Parts: sequence; structure tokens; C-alpha cells
Amino acid sequence: MADKTEQLRKQIEDQGNVVRQLKASKADKTQVDEGVALLLGLKDKLRIASGDSGSSKKDSKSGLTLKTPKGTKDYTAKEMSVRSEIFRTIVGVFERHGAVTIDTPVFELKDILTGKYGEDSKLIYDLKDQGGEECSLRYDLTVPFARHVAMNGIQSIKRYQIAKVYRRDQPAMTKGRMREFYQCDYDIAGSYDPMIPDAECVRVAVEILSKLDVGAFIIKLNHRKILDAIFEVSGVPEDKVRTISSAVDKLDKLPWADVRKEMTEEKGLDGVVADRIGTYVKLSGGEELLERLQALPELMASTKAQQGVADMALFFTYARIYNILDRVSFDMSLARGLDYYTGIIYEAVLVEESQQPNNPQPTVAQTSTKKPKSDELDESQVRVGSIAAGGRYDELVGMFLASRRGAKGGKKTDVPCVGISFGVERIYSIVMNRMREREIKANRTAVYVISVKDGLLEERMRIATELWDNGIAAEFAYKVKPRLQSQYNACDADVIPWAVLVGKDEVEQGVVLIKNMAEKVSGQERGVTVKRSEMVAELKKRLF
Amino acid sequence: MADKTEQLRKQIEDQGNVVRQLKASKADKTQVDEGVALLLGLKDKLRIASGDSGSSKKDSKSGLTLKTPKGTKDYTAKEMSVRSEIFRTIVGVFERHGAVTIDTPVFELKDILTGKYGEDSKLIYDLKDQGGEECSLRYDLTVPFARHVAMNGIQSIKRYQIAKVYRRDQPAMTKGRMREFYQCDYDIAGSYDPMIPDAECVRVAVEILSKLDVGAFIIKLNHRKILDAIFEVSGVPEDKVRTISSAVDKLDKLPWADVRKEMTEEKGLDGVVADRIGTYVKLSGGEELLERLQALPELMASTKAQQGVADMALFFTYARIYNILDRVSFDMSLARGLDYYTGIIYEAVLVEESQQPNNPQPTVAQTSTKKPKSDELDESQVRVGSIAAGGRYDELVGMFLASRRGAKGGKKTDVPCVGISFGVERIYSIVMNRMREREIKANRTAVYVISVKDGLLEERMRIATELWDNGIAAEFAYKVKPRLQSQYNACDADVIPWAVLVGKDEVEQGVVLIKNMAEKVSGQERGVTVKRSEMVAELKKRLF
Repeated sequence: MADKTEQLRKQIEDQGNVVRQLKASKADKTQVDEGVALLLGLKDKLRIASGDSGSSKKDSKSGLTLKTPKGTKDYTAKEMSVRSEIFRTIVGVFERHGAVTIDTPVFELKDILTGKYGEDSKLIYDLKDQGGEECSLRYDLTVPFARHVAMNGIQSIKRYQIAKVYRRDQPAMTKGRMREFYQCDYDIAGSYDPMIPDAECVRVAVEILSKLDVGAFIIKLNHRKILDAIFEVSGVPEDKVRTISSAVDKLDKLPWADVRKEMTEEKGLDGVVADRIGTYVKLSGGEELLERLQALPELMASTKAQQGVADMALFFTYARIYNILDRVSFDMSLARGLDYYTGIIYEAVLVEESQQPNNPQPTVAQTSTKKPKSDELDESQVRVGSIAAGGRYDELVGMFLASRRGAKGGKKTDVPCVGISFGVERIYSIVMNRMREREIKANRTAVYVISVKDGLLEERMRIATELWDNGIAAEFAYKVKPRLQSQYNACDADVIPWAVLVGKDEVEQGVVLIKNMAEKVSGQERGVTVKRSEMVAELKKRLF
Repeated sequence: MADKTEQLRKQIEDQGNVVRQLKASKADKTQVDEGVALLLGLKDKLRIASGDSGSSKKDSKSGLTLKTPKGTKDYTAKEMSVRSEIFRTIVGVFERHGAVTIDTPVFELKDILTGKYGEDSKLIYDLKDQGGEECSLRYDLTVPFARHVAMNGIQSIKRYQIAKVYRRDQPAMTKGRMREFYQCDYDIAGSYDPMIPDAECVRVAVEILSKLDVGAFIIKLNHRKILDAIFEVSGVPEDKVRTISSAVDKLDKLPWADVRKEMTEEKGLDGVVADRIGTYVKLSGGEELLERLQALPELMASTKAQQGVADMALFFTYARIYNILDRVSFDMSLARGLDYYTGIIYEAVLVEESQQPNNPQPTVAQTSTKKPKSDELDESQVRVGSIAAGGRYDELVGMFLASRRGAKGGKKTDVPCVGISFGVERIYSIVMNRMREREIKANRTAVYVISVKDGLLEERMRIATELWDNGIAAEFAYKVKPRLQSQYNACDADVIPWAVLVGKDEVEQGVVLIKNMAEKVSGQERGVTVKRSEMVAELKKRLF
């Protein structure tokens, strides 16, 4: 043990030097990222080797660890029942808005993902090189979607996709931050008139989050062109725009003073410039914010600001028709991390009930001090972060198309896109927490076939067969002679609402007892006796 | 290029030597497998490097290849529509039989998969070691299920799982053999009375395959204990049982002469022993085969044969009650590749219509010469192989439990399991091929909102909002002033059955036109005019 940790410490030291050298020599970004990833991996290994990992201890005898990989989990039947219901709700809304679904492989050629995720590229999972192509697990559904659109020469599509994505991030399972997690994406690709699909994406978000039991929410909006204009007129140097933008994005978690400090002390921005940014990004409100922005001559001198404000004006017109004005907040502090956004951006966050629905303009301070609204919500839910987010990305498909035309030198024709992604694990955490107390039915079994005495296995099989043949979900005990109580217990455990009971007498008389297992009334104990030939019809009356 | 291929050839030579040495020194099987995998990988690379791979050529300019990884594919919206329908049918039957669903991660700790798949272990995809744990993509759903059951101390569960699995096999896409593909598994875990869950698994298969549009099928049955007895009484040496068993398994593709040759020439089995096996494995039939087996004193002297035959007698009793006798064929040549089976095994195969339903005993020769039954079925479908398969595996969970108890030394309590897995990609290939001619509707849009003139974007938005609010799937053109014809075309392209039309006149009069877009009757051109306030009610009448 000591040897191994010692060896790892040495390796970490060496790799640390390699990374420092790469950075010093301004090496290719990918190279640096890979170096850093390797370093982090070695540190992980050291942590495990030195016994600093509760969930990963090996059974000393067999050498086999019975667990799922770090940052992943199994979903039990009851958990799946809740998650499936969430999916059903989401898909229902997606389909109501005309979306079709596609499927893409869980891994992509490594090159497809390269250069799409900025600093986060180091979180990509690679497959081992076992010969053939170099592949990586998908990091999101957006890049594979853009690849699919470009590869197939698609001009327009409205698609949804619900699938798992993979990130080698530090997991925080209770907050729903996992290494393997589902995303539910809805995207509209195609050249359309401005802001029509954009407004529909936000409408889709409002429909879905209203239908799901997540509590009060608000959708923050901003526009990349307005943000760019703010940085421009504030005097942020070109090469600092991205890093300053990600500092701004932290305003939902940190007070302005901390963000300002990050800008000036960590990122070397001039204090005067930071303060100028501060006056802008603290602005938030509803439609009326448009007028306040238009009244800022310095900002509006920028063509980008004019374009962004014109877009947002159109957005608010459409949002009014879509009845979602009370759900949106125009918020200058919203920046979003990903590089590929080019227009409107949005992010759905949970808010305190008091802010909803008649006070839809939370300030930065309000959202950052959000507290659990009842004892049901535990600490893990307080900072659940955004539960849906997205925006317009007009150039991503074009990046792939450019490579496709390549030597042919055809002219560039982008396929503009706008979309939204739902963080279903977070939604699931919230919903599951709320449901904790209730009984969750994981199966769909409607009828349990019970023998009162004598086993009667074959008779139970015959009844089940008849029920199955008639589309009724039915089960029975897999025993030749099951005890009556154990059959009742099975109904209780699986929340099965109806039972068909037979004994020797019933078989002889050609009848069965139908019993409502949901009602715990002892007087109803005997249930209703019906003719065997009418059993299916009687059950259907009660079930459908 | 020449340098690279030269280098690869050298590496292949070296690795070949390594593998030979490993084999010669009788090294650990896992080590040999890894060596072989590396060798195959290098050969793959050489093939690519020497330009021998049509689908993998790089665009010389951008260096980016716009494709999905080898053996994987995207599913388009129409393909997904067909596939989703298949899933719905399958899940419907699983749930009718009381199954719940669970979810497991797409990758497992490498150790979990090790030693479960025999020769096929070399087909497992590993993740790159980026620090932390060593992981592999799941190879099937059975081993993760057994891991889940053992890890959570589950005593009984009836679960289904529909999820992708991964095998670095040589792809044959047209036959539905992919590197990434879905499996649909239904398994019953728990200690029950003999053959009751087993018979239900086969009943589940019959229900599903009858509901899917796959054509005539038959489910071949056999029992591992009977097979073992056959090898025993025929005189197969203990260490050759597994390899001879996999030769037998080829009888659905090869004539007996070829299989005999493999046994004797390749695998060094005594010709007399092979012939003895031959007399047994050529046997097939229905329930009456039980009596024929019982009349073979040499075979029935084996305790294993007695147990197997008793199991199968019980199976046929239950199969009669379940009305599936005409769908099963008791076939001594069915062996199944996987190591973990311990009892009944079964495999569903397609047969010619003439064999169904009154002649349910295909001979080996018949199934091996199956031909397409119409022009619709192309070559790719002829050898689609098994479309569902499974069996009883009583010791797999126990393998994990043993490791869990480990040093604690608790007593061994297995959780016996039986299950069936549907090869949905193959089923999909068949169904998709049959549907080729028909129109497939990929979306669920019920109504398209059309402006006759003047654009009327905001009015169209208002109508769509009202439809969405009432649960009606609706779309409209994302243009301020769309052309009438392009709106009609959208309805046609997406097979949208109803349109709501508005023009300036209609808005003024407070009416809309409802038009059936499915009917191509020109006299109906004008549709039905209804009051705007009755639009939703009128549409609901037509839709629900």
C-alpha cells in the first residue's frame, strides 16, 4: 500500500511538471487539457489507494467490488416509475409541439466532440483504444444533433431526444449531479423568421415545468448580442470576454462583490471596467427593461445591442400571445457557459412561491438566497441549480457542414438552431423527494389471482391466461400451494387494486370472487361473486 | 503512410509473438483474451491505414470525418417511430405480466463483467483509463441485472429492461448485427416452484412475437441438463463439453456432416462419440418427444437426463394451459452459447408460413433452408437469426453474492433466475422492411394552422396556443408571411390529418375553416366553417 501511494505521489509530481511546462510553452489547448485530465486521474487514484473513498473499498477475499461506477447509480423500480412519468409528461409536450425524435449512438468519433465544449472538454469520457476508431461518450445531445443534421443534409427539423450523456465531473449525487445522466432536449433547426421558434422553446419549457410537480419557477432570459455589447462598451479586452462572461454567470450563486473580485483580482480586469459591467448586469425585469436599455445611449450605440434588443422586443410580443409573460425574467446577469450560443439564451430556475406568479422579477439577491420552502425540501434541493436551459446556436451545424464540403469549397449555408435542454435528474430529485411519503406503484398489474385453499395452480394459470388474452395485467403466486396470507401480502406490497379469488367450491360452481384490494373495509371482505364466464367483463367494467 | 503501415505490421508481428507465448505458457485466460484483442485492434488499424475501409475516409482538408462510429447508426424520425411502436408493444406485454423496470448504468466496473462471457469477452468495450476506476460498456443486460439483484439483496423481482448493449463484433448492419444495439429483457428472479416462471417467459415471447408483425415463428426449446446428459452418455470428455456444445449450436446454420467434421477434425472428438451425439441431437418434435426420450434407457440412466425430462414434462403441462403448444418445438440441437444457463433454454426463430401453425416441428434441414417468402423480404432478412432467446440461470446472482459475503463467510443462498431477451434490432429490420412501402408518420401533430393570405402570424400563434392549452398537438409555419402552398406541403410531408385555416375575412367574422387534409377530395376543398369559439370542441370531436 505504502509503495503504491508513494509511486502515485511521484507520478503526480511528474505530471504536474508536465502540465506546467505545457502551459508555459503555450501548448495546444487540447494537449494541456489532456495533461490536466491525466493529473486529476492520478489524484483520484491516490485518493482511492490511500483509502480515502468510502464507496470504493474492495472485498479483500474475492477482489470484486459490488457497486456501480462512481457518479452512476441504478434506478429501482419505484424510482423508474417516477422517472418514466416525468419522461411521459415531457415527451407529451414535445410531441404537442410537433417534434419528432431521433436516436444517435452513445459514443461519437472523438473528433466530432473536439473543440465544442471549451474548458469542459477535459470532462469527456474516452473509450479505450482497442483498435479502429477513437471514440468518446457523448457529452451532451446538442453536438450529436448538429452532427446528424449536417451529415444528412437536413434543412429543417424539430426534434426531441431523451438520452443519457456523460461527464467526468465531481459527482454530487444528492443534488442530482451525476457522471451519467439523462438530458431531454427539444431543438428547432431551420431558417425561419426571427424569434418565432425561440419563443416556442420557452413556451415548451413553461408547459413542461407547469405540468411537473417542481414548484414555482421562472425562466431567466438574456441575449448573447446584448451581453457582447455590454462587454464591448464597458471596455473588456477581446481576449477576456469569455472568462469575464463566465464570471458574470456566477451572479446567481455569488453576490456582486465576489464576482467583481474575481474579475479584477483573479482575471486582471480594470476595476473601472468591472464597475461599468456591474451597472449593466444588475439590471433585470420584464418587458419594460427593453425601454430602460433603449434609454442607454452608450449601450445602444452598439449594433449588437440594437440587434439583441430588437430580437428581445419581438420575443416579448410573441411571449404575450403565448401567455408566458408572467413566467419570464429579462436578466442581464444570465450568461451561460457554452461557447456556441449566438442569440437568445434562457435558463429555468426554481424560485420561492412568494415570487410567483404576480411578482415575476426576482432580483439577483432574491434568487441567490433561495431557501427551502418547507420541511419537505431538504438541503440537497436548495441549490438544485437550473432545471432547464438553452438558447440559439446558429453556427454549430455550419461548423460540421464546412468540414463536409471541405475541398469541394461549396458556399456556406448554415442551418440555424434554437433549443432547450431539461435537466431531468434534477427534476427527478425534486419530484422524488416530494413523493417520498406517498405510495408509488412500480408495476401495472391490475389483478392478482388468488387460490383460497388447495393451491389450484392450473386453475389460477387458466384464469391468468384468460386475463392476459383480454389485455388485463395479471399475476399469481409462482407456487403450487401458496399460503393465502402470502398472496394477500403480494397484493399489498405491489399495490395491486383487484383480486380474483377461487377455491374448490368456486371452481365447482363455475364462479369467482372479485375483490377490491384497495379498499381496506373489513365488511367488504367477501367481495362480489360473479360467474366465471362474466369475470372478464366484470373486471373490465372496474378497470377501464 | 508507408511508414505507418510498416510500423503497424511490425507491431502486429510482435503482438502475434506475445499471444503465441501466452498461449504456449498456458497463461491466464483473461491475459490471452486481452492479447488477442490487442492484436485484432492492430489489424483493424492496419486495414484503415492502408485505405481498406470505405466508410472511414477522412476529409483531407478539415481532417473531420462526418460519420457515426463503425457498427453504430443514427435512427431517423421515421425509423424511431417504427422502433418506438415495437418498444410499446413489448413493454405492454411485459407489464401485462407484472414486470417492473429498473435502470443500470451503461458502463460497469470492469471486474463485474470479467469471466461472464467466455470466448466473447474479447468483444467487450473498455473505457479509457482516465484515472479512477476501470470500466467497460455493458455487454448484455443479464449480468448487470444479476449484479443489481446481488448488490441490493433482492430476494425476488420480475423486471424488464430495454437498453443498449455494446459488442466490438464485426458489424453486419443489414442483418441487424450492430456494435451498439438494444436488448429488451424480461427476467424473473426468485425461489419458486419448478417451471412456473419458465413457462411464463415462453408465453411472454409468444404474446410479443404474435403482436409484432414479424411473420410465422417458432420457439425451440431444450434443457441444459438433458444436453449435459447427452454429452455424458455419448462419452464426451469433461474438458470438451463446452466446445462440443457450441458446435451443436451451429446445427441451425450447418448440416450435420459439417458439424460432425468440426467436432472430429477441428476439435479432436472421437468419430464414434460424434455419431452417438448425432443420434440424439437430430431429435426434435413436440410434447411426444418426452416419451421418445424416456424410452432411451442409456440416456435416462443419467440423473441429469431424469431431472431435465421431468422439468420439460412440467413445462409442457403449463404450456398447454397457456395455449402455446403450437408455437414450441422441443429441439435437441438447441445449445445456446452462454455459459451461465443451468436449466431450460429457448430461442425464437422465424419459419416459413407453411410450417405454421399446424406443423410445428421444423426439422434442422427445414429451418436451415428458410427462404424469403415474398419479394418484399430481401436477402438481408433471410438469415436474421434468432429474434429472442433465453433460459434459466440459477447461479449467476450467487456468483456475485459469494463475493459480497466474501470474508464474512455467510452461507450461500442463490437467487435463481429465468429470463428472455428480445433482439429488437432484428425485429426492427424485419418490421421496417415490411413497412417500406407505407407512409410512416413520425410526429404526432394533429392540426396545422394555416393562414390563407396576409400572413396573420399572431392570429396563427393565438390559435396554436389555444390548441396546445387544450392538449391538441399543433404546428404552424415559422414565417411572418408563409405561402399557402408551402403550408399545404408541410401537412403532406408530415402526414398531418387536420388543418385550421384563417384569412382576414374569417378573423373579422369570428370563424375558422376546419379541413381534413387526409382526404384528397377536391370537392371538400373548402372544409367546414365553424365559430372560432367552437373550434376546439369541433376538433376534439374529430380527434379523440
